[in-house]
Amino acid sequence: MASSETARLEAFSDGVFAIAITLLVLDLKVPRDIHDGGRSLAQVLLAQWPAYLAFVTSFMTILIMWVNHHRIFTLVARCDDRLLLYNGLLLLGVTVVPFPTALVAEYLRHDGQRTAAILYNLTFIFIAICFNVLWRSAAVGNRLLHPGADPLAVKRIFDAYRYGPVWYLAALGLVFVSVTASLVLNLALALFFAAPGRSARNVPS
Amino acid sequence: MASSETARLEAFSDGVFAIAITLLVLDLKVPRDIHDGGRSLAQVLLAQWPAYLAFVTSFMTILIMWVNHHRIFTLVARCDDRLLLYNGLLLLGVTVVPFPTALVAEYLRHDGQRTAAILYNLTFIFIAICFNVLWRSAAVGNRLLHPGADPLAVKRIFDAYRYGPVWYLAALGLVFVSVTASLVLNLALALFFAAPGRSARNVPS
Amino acid sequence: MASSETARLEAFSDGVFAIAITLLVLDLKVPRDIHDGGRSLAQVLLAQWPAYLAFVTSFMTILIMWVNHHRIFTLVARCDDRLLLYNGLLLLGVTVVPFPTALVAEYLRHDGQRTAAILYNLTFIFIAICFNVLWRSAAVGNRLLHPGADPLAVKRIFDAYRYGPVWYLAALGLVFVSVTASLVLNLALALFFAAPGRSARNVPS
Amino acid sequence: MASSETARLEAFSDGVFAIAITLLVLDLKVPRDIHDGGRSLAQVLLAQWPAYLAFVTSFMTILIMWVNHHRIFTLVARCDDRLLLYNGLLLLGVTVVPFPTALVAEYLRHDGQRTAAILYNLTFIFIAICFNVLWRSAAVGNRLLHPGADPLAVKRIFDAYRYGPVWYLAALGLVFVSVTASLVLNLALALFFAAPGRSARNVPS
Repeated sequence: MASSETARLEAFSDGVFAIAITLLVLDLKVPRDIHDGGRSLAQVLLAQWPAYLAFVTSFMTILIMWVNHHRIFTLVARCDDRLLLYNGLLLLGVTVVPFPTALVAEYLRHDGQRTAAILYNLTFIFIAICFNVLWRSAAVGNRLLHPGADPLAVKRIFDAYRYGPVWYLAALGLVFVSVTASLVLNLALALFFAAPGRSARNVPS
Repeated sequence: MASSETARLEAFSDGVFAIAITLLVLDLKVPRDIHDGGRSLAQVLLAQWPAYLAFVTSFMTILIMWVNHHRIFTLVARCDDRLLLYNGLLLLGVTVVPFPTALVAEYLRHDGQRTAAILYNLTFIFIAICFNVLWRSAAVGNRLLHPGADPLAVKRIFDAYRYGPVWYLAALGLVFVSVTASLVLNLALALFFAAPGRSARNVPS
Repeated sequence: MASSETARLEAFSDGVFAIAITLLVLDLKVPRDIHDGGRSLAQVLLAQWPAYLAFVTSFMTILIMWVNHHRIFTLVARCDDRLLLYNGLLLLGVTVVPFPTALVAEYLRHDGQRTAAILYNLTFIFIAICFNVLWRSAAVGNRLLHPGADPLAVKRIFDAYRYGPVWYLAALGLVFVSVTASLVLNLALALFFAAPGRSARNVPS
Repeated sequence: MASSETARLEAFSDGVFAIAITLLVLDLKVPRDIHDGGRSLAQVLLAQWPAYLAFVTSFMTILIMWVNHHRIFTLVARCDDRLLLYNGLLLLGVTVVPFPTALVAEYLRHDGQRTAAILYNLTFIFIAICFNVLWRSAAVGNRLLHPGADPLAVKRIFDAYRYGPVWYLAALGLVFVSVTASLVLNLALALFFAAPGRSARNVPS
């Protein structure tokens, strides 16, 4: 699958994806001093639903991104400085995800929720652009692809990446109508693209 | 062992398991301001025993889950979108484990301990169901297995997974009798299935 | 180097070692509100020297443990349930290290420093015992070793592990004379065994 | 690419690099209690710009270090105790990076910023020295290199490493003129060496 030339790049990227996706759990906070409000632990935990929504959305989105990264590198055979740089910027975006996720978890349904959701979607748009640049750097003119890379698989990724950032722009626009609706769209996108049979055709980021 | 097609899925999963199991230590809190209560550090640390019980239980349970994941993927040869999705949901469950673990560590022997223990067991039941769905997706009709996968090893996993969630349902039921007893059952299950010679026959999750 | 049968066990173990060693940095705390005491940042940072001593000692000790783990598995060819269990207990010890490290960093030169240093050394003794049990499980009667494993390399590990726990027992005993001296002995042990040419002969844990 | 003898050293190092680079996000703090000051979330987040500058600088610097580590080990064929030790000291430096990064994020534009920036640059100088020692240990007299290692690639690394620490010494000196300018130089260095076509010629650390 991986050529030996891209093997360590993939191993390092896998590490970053795996850690970023696992650090998300640190945003699920254990409530303290719950008795002051006269509420039960169950009530306090239920009131934290924005944190769970943000957690699941970010988890599924990073998971889809990892699947896409994996799919790209089944086609890429060689590695150069530009690919390393673009992959590094992509990983910068991925490692940042826990921060806007924490902002959304903290501020959804409070003042500041719009700012939090805008940053959340800007992060995803940045990552989608990095995926585009990374892919074009490798695939235009088959520069770094396997000589025998399936042209249909290559074309599908081009098609998918053309529309990927558009979806996140739509979610960004929806922030100005309803922040919660925008977040639900983010989750729906991740679930839609995670559904079997879809991802090969039109992965968004 | 791993086919090249599942190699990166296994590497990513190993990363998530390794990070989730290591993040558990963040729930072991260094006591501060111990002198206000006139107690020694040793006394304060001993009073934190629920945190240690929850830590060891979650550690051993994630370890057993990793062993099971490892065992499944010695038999699985190919990878498709459905397998990626089910594996992703399984990893979602695994990354969540530190959160209910922290809840149990904080609330055991206090108000709210039942809620904490219910969530703890629901997390394990969710993971056990994911293991079942993942395995059936790969193994029914030998869809994604190695052509030469040992039929006895395959049958053993089917048998084990049939009863896996039942054990965690029992632990969940026990919560309503005694929360501490339920947690001790969780630990006993992990130790029982970790004991040499057992795991191949009837892994629970 | 690694047989394919032990490859995933090594990858998972590498992940746990790498994460545990990196989480140690979370114990280096950024001072807040330094101006209340009229001291400069440099003075406050210098006063945190126990945290740096504990950090470097734990880092070097986990590093030596990783080198030992690495060395053992160049000789081990096969993997069974017992080896998985003993390796799991070893990793339990390794993931715990950041907790007693944080205790030592917080309590050295304060009440409770003896308790902290005892737990610190007990953790290392537990890991040293796990290394012994893991190694004996693999090496006695060459049960799981490569058929061509160098008998001299095997004998050296047996010799080294015979005295390994003794060193940590000495450091534990020294706690009752001087806690700081015990910690310095811990660091000296790690540096001594990290020095080139020594590790193959008498690795302590 | 990697010889089997250095494979596990590279896997462990990749893990440490990946975790250190991802832990940086923990220094991006979610603001709490923003309403006391009568400011919006956006205003509070903008005021945190030193944290973002420190984050991006440290991310890009660790990324370049990983690229350099990767490049060295395409040439190194064998592994001995000295190489393990020097690589361990290098990783010690890498895992420490999140600490001075957090200091800079907290103290830039406040009393103590000079101390923070000095420690930040000393960390990078320590790592640059470790890279030099590691490389010389492997490359002088081709001691541990592949027999067929490209002499031009070897020479380029020698040339680059001769000047690497000098750049960080310049950034350290600049601290005494302007702390912010020093940090901007750090970022410029990382971006300069990350730019395609440069890194092979004169990687700084």
